[in-house]
Amino acid sequence: MKRISKLFQPSLIIPKNAVVKNQDITSKSQRLMLENGLIRQAGNGTFHLLPLLQRSLQKAVNLIDHHMEMVGAQKLTLPLLTSAELWKKSGRIGEDSTRGGTATELLQTTDRHGKVQILGPTHEESVTSLLAAIAPVSYRQFPLRLYQISTKFRDEMKPRFGLMRAKEFLMKDLYTFDVDIGKCRETYEEVNEAYNRLFSALEVPFIKVSGDCGTMGGSLSHEYHFLSDVGEDALVRCSRCGIHSNEELFQTLSKQCKICTGIETYDRQTGIEIAHAFVLEDRYTKVLAATCLQPNGKPTSLQMGCFGIGVTRLIAASIEVLSSNKEIRWPSALAPYRVCIVSPKAGSKEEPLSLPWVERLYHDLQTVKGCEGEVIVDDRSQLTIGKRVLDARKIGYPVIVVVGSKSVHGDAFELHNLFAGTEQNLSYNDTLSTIATILSKQNSMQHKTQSYEKTALVNEN
Amino acid sequence: MKRISKLFQPSLIIPKNAVVKNQDITSKSQRLMLENGLIRQAGNGTFHLLPLLQRSLQKAVNLIDHHMEMVGAQKLTLPLLTSAELWKKSGRIGEDSTRGGTATELLQTTDRHGKVQILGPTHEESVTSLLAAIAPVSYRQFPLRLYQISTKFRDEMKPRFGLMRAKEFLMKDLYTFDVDIGKCRETYEEVNEAYNRLFSALEVPFIKVSGDCGTMGGSLSHEYHFLSDVGEDALVRCSRCGIHSNEELFQTLSKQCKICTGIETYDRQTGIEIAHAFVLEDRYTKVLAATCLQPNGKPTSLQMGCFGIGVTRLIAASIEVLSSNKEIRWPSALAPYRVCIVSPKAGSKEEPLSLPWVERLYHDLQTVKGCEGEVIVDDRSQLTIGKRVLDARKIGYPVIVVVGSKSVHGDAFELHNLFAGTEQNLSYNDTLSTIATILSKQNSMQHKTQSYEKTALVNEN
Repeated sequence: MKRISKLFQPSLIIPKNAVVKNQDITSKSQRLMLENGLIRQAGNGTFHLLPLLQRSLQKAVNLIDHHMEMVGAQKLTLPLLTSAELWKKSGRIGEDSTRGGTATELLQTTDRHGKVQILGPTHEESVTSLLAAIAPVSYRQFPLRLYQISTKFRDEMKPRFGLMRAKEFLMKDLYTFDVDIGKCRETYEEVNEAYNRLFSALEVPFIKVSGDCGTMGGSLSHEYHFLSDVGEDALVRCSRCGIHSNEELFQTLSKQCKICTGIETYDRQTGIEIAHAFVLEDRYTKVLAATCLQPNGKPTSLQMGCFGIGVTRLIAASIEVLSSNKEIRWPSALAPYRVCIVSPKAGSKEEPLSLPWVERLYHDLQTVKGCEGEVIVDDRSQLTIGKRVLDARKIGYPVIVVVGSKSVHGDAFELHNLFAGTEQNLSYNDTLSTIATILSKQNSMQHKTQSYEKTALVNEN
Repeated sequence: MKRISKLFQPSLIIPKNAVVKNQDITSKSQRLMLENGLIRQAGNGTFHLLPLLQRSLQKAVNLIDHHMEMVGAQKLTLPLLTSAELWKKSGRIGEDSTRGGTATELLQTTDRHGKVQILGPTHEESVTSLLAAIAPVSYRQFPLRLYQISTKFRDEMKPRFGLMRAKEFLMKDLYTFDVDIGKCRETYEEVNEAYNRLFSALEVPFIKVSGDCGTMGGSLSHEYHFLSDVGEDALVRCSRCGIHSNEELFQTLSKQCKICTGIETYDRQTGIEIAHAFVLEDRYTKVLAATCLQPNGKPTSLQMGCFGIGVTRLIAASIEVLSSNKEIRWPSALAPYRVCIVSPKAGSKEEPLSLPWVERLYHDLQTVKGCEGEVIVDDRSQLTIGKRVLDARKIGYPVIVVVGSKSVHGDAFELHNLFAGTEQNLSYNDTLSTIATILSKQNSMQHKTQSYEKTALVNEN
């Protein structure tokens, strides 16, 4: 049985009137994660991800794996250390390895033989050199879609917002390779549709906006954002054509809409970028010589795309958007546990007769679809039931069941459904069936595209 | 359907008479992995882990997770970047951050604010500082067992043997904390038993030997080795008491057995170290102030243990030990796929009638226990069946089924069982039931301790 008394969940108590330095706690999600023992700060921009959050992270990884597999992407691992030589070849760092220009956020390490290596935020050079080593590849091998989920690094000037802008973070990076630009754009559409399904499954309102190709190069780019006040990206929506874009892009084009070239009024919102997609064309493949053999026998440069999702950021941003100031709310798919059972108070009259119901409920729930391994018992029975229900609501377990004084004869179990915001007293059998219904509804919602997001998609070309 | 034609598996062709430089390919497992498209070299001591190997890696991670959960260990993520300040406090690097003495193998990076950070091979400082930040912790919280599976770094002078001695590798590191030395030693025994179960499940002969505490500090240490000629550790077995130990330790004690103090004859073997266990006592907790509150209200330093498993090394070492010079053999638990179906040759007489049997077999196998998602079809039908069977045997899929000319009416399917070394022609139904039997036998073997390893354990105290 999984027990909260055994869980390593060291909450940080932040006194209400404490003078908390701005650089320490700069977002709601960061504060809630610290207070509820999900993370601990390790250094400037680095965090320990504690066991409850680790579970959530694993669920995000599984969800991403699922959607990547659906588009035929194959998972691999590229080394975290990439030779600086490759970055020089692509032109993203200078010949002298200095971190000038766009490379100021790159962390480097030099090995005992004097070789400089990059701890990269992204791996275009690395994966392209892998393709180049086996080039030219027959056109039959394409489309080729390779991704990894691994730790990335960015030497932020000012890390902030907890996991949302950290120095070290978990990221999914997918690289696609096609034989020509037409196929490359087809791949781009396919992956964007997969992103739409993936973010819809999280049920956090998101929008897809035109993005800036920036230092990545390439010809087409979109960003995915959760709308939030703490978002660092200003997003604008052209009132003439309705298309969203990143304000950076908007301003680059002298406040002209990129799509309809209108210079009309526009709406402004702020968003947290959770994903980014690029058509890179032959920006990297040409210079690193990653080619394919066309049916006519001629080698030509591969057409490349890249697609990132900030995994740790995705979780933090979800919490930022869904939570109140006091209570965490998770996307149902990412909650660390789906059900929390609160056991009777130690020494209470009801304890001897209620306790067996905790065991029984725990074990019966393991056979409910979507519930296996997803139940935790708050057995800190020295605390009152009320205190533990408050804690469970703060952590945001989607379903909370109290086994208390009314449960002695299996008559009534108090069931909190945090998504519906309801509380009911139910018989034992009704408790089981109601939990099954709640979870199956959540499961099916994860496969449904919501109207909100459909609207966002319709706005796009 | 998972198809080999779509698999990213770029084999490296190493001409028989090629002058292969010694530093390039220095072990059988490295050569086999390169030839079979499991890995590609990225830099000196760094490798791309390709999709087939990625699957094997995921299975190793799941297996380790399972055995860690069995001893109540909780998974978390510590940052890869650890402040050099912490390493100075523990005394493992000098005050001037130089990599003198034991620290020569540490990679470092300096951020834009001039802070030096270690890309560590191990995380004692990091996890102890996490505990110290919440100290003193009530004695009720213990035993506390925290582990992670993450990328580690070692600035090897001479990386070699492929994944066995790489600069960047995947490692499981478990840290245990207890209230006193007695409990710490109980934890040590418990985790060592878990290691025994875990390595027994792999069915690769291993031995447990007394190890040197070396730069880790602490009072007790054991290593786990696969016996192999390419092993870099010399192991000796005292002929008086029968206990194994690392020769380093043996020599330190002037060729005297540590256990029985005998100076008798001894046997010598070489091993590949796959895991290491240490009782660290208060070596780190004292200097970093990680304390617990005893029942009498007094804070005392925690008693610590640490337990590593090289995950990428474990896979490479398994291949090294189990494979022939030409064909890979995996521990059944770690094979990338468990069954490979070879489809009929394109354009052959039998193709139109045999092909539907491939589909049917693939789908029926998904419902066989242990087979879901574990079947891949070699659909490269432009190649002969013979060539593809050779390939499948080289990769080492434990079960290979040929759907060929005899399968037209579902009469006979050629089944290769690589573990038993048998080949049979079976009817369709017998093919299904035989595969079920083979896999269930493998599943149950994974939960059985073999006599060989029991002997090794009996030798230990």
